[in-house]
Amino acid sequence: MENISEKKTLRREDERKKLINRLKRIEGQIRGICGMIENDAYCTDILTQSAAVNAAINAFNKELIGSHIRGCVVRDIKAGNDEVIDDLLSTLQKLMK
Amino acid sequence: MENISEKKTLRREDERKKLINRLKRIEGQIRGICGMIENDAYCTDILTQSAAVNAAINAFNKELIGSHIRGCVVRDIKAGNDEVIDDLLSTLQKLMK
Amino acid sequence: MENISEKKTLRREDERKKLINRLKRIEGQIRGICGMIENDAYCTDILTQSAAVNAAINAFNKELIGSHIRGCVVRDIKAGNDEVIDDLLSTLQKLMK
Amino acid sequence: MENISEKKTLRREDERKKLINRLKRIEGQIRGICGMIENDAYCTDILTQSAAVNAAINAFNKELIGSHIRGCVVRDIKAGNDEVIDDLLSTLQKLMK
Repeated sequence: MENISEKKTLRREDERKKLINRLKRIEGQIRGICGMIENDAYCTDILTQSAAVNAAINAFNKELIGSHIRGCVVRDIKAGNDEVIDDLLSTLQKLMK
Repeated sequence: MENISEKKTLRREDERKKLINRLKRIEGQIRGICGMIENDAYCTDILTQSAAVNAAINAFNKELIGSHIRGCVVRDIKAGNDEVIDDLLSTLQKLMK
Repeated sequence: MENISEKKTLRREDERKKLINRLKRIEGQIRGICGMIENDAYCTDILTQSAAVNAAINAFNKELIGSHIRGCVVRDIKAGNDEVIDDLLSTLQKLMK
Repeated sequence: MENISEKKTLRREDERKKLINRLKRIEGQIRGICGMIENDAYCTDILTQSAAVNAAINAFNKELIGSHIRGCVVRDIKAGNDEVIDDLLSTLQKLMK
């Protein structure tokens, strides 16, 4: 998994920490599910946890798309770099229901 | 995250390994996204990866619900333990769109 | 849109009415959205309504899968007609996230 | 279902027709599902059709959000009306997974 774009996003330290903390919690949830499988946990108990992981990733996505739109997208549109729109729309295709 | 039910599911060794391998890959994807944030990756590059995590968890869920229904649910219904149905339906509420 | 299967499901009159009422309401919501477009409604006002349609169809799906599992699936498994399981799992692939 | 905002979106005639045609097709699909229930169609045959309705509404949503962002959002940001962003983000909360 490589950063496929040349573009960078400089985030404030508090925002970066918040995003990383969310991901660390999700990583812990995944490890917890691994442990459940190793302990022969009942299928629907596992599925309850993996549904919670999905919800946590969706929350991460919503936070990140929000700061992307408020930050990068607004700035680029004001600067006349409208190609940010095509990239936003193709990303939304993946994130929308 | 505790196994909240008394019930257990004994899985075949190959099935258990397959589920754990899926989870290990997802854990690696999450760590990769952490690294992207630490390296100031562009927002939509990160969102492409986190959308892939969501898809991977959905695939895990589909595999597990399939083996749950073919295994536990069929066996319990044949044994007259119809309470397995209530538990299945409440789990499906969380997994369905 | 044809009924592609030979199989039938006989529903109780109250259940049939409940399902049809849900669909009539959804049909009304769709017509309402048509009217909004004809009246130049603002995009996000329309999207709020179409998101509500999605939620209403998801609720319809959850009700129908519930009565399918409690009715057809349990009966067929008890009768040894386990092919009901393959059909259920392929339907769940379409309905799960 | 009322247009809750004072704001209007003037759409080109071809775009308006395209959106309305999508909705008319969805309305027809809903009526088809009503007919299936009246004819005792098998549950999973119905669910296949209602999953298709969901996909059709999602496609409608993606088309409309695309033209909203390319049109209204870009124009308002360039005009300094940044409140369009709050409205967009609250709409995306409803449309994202």
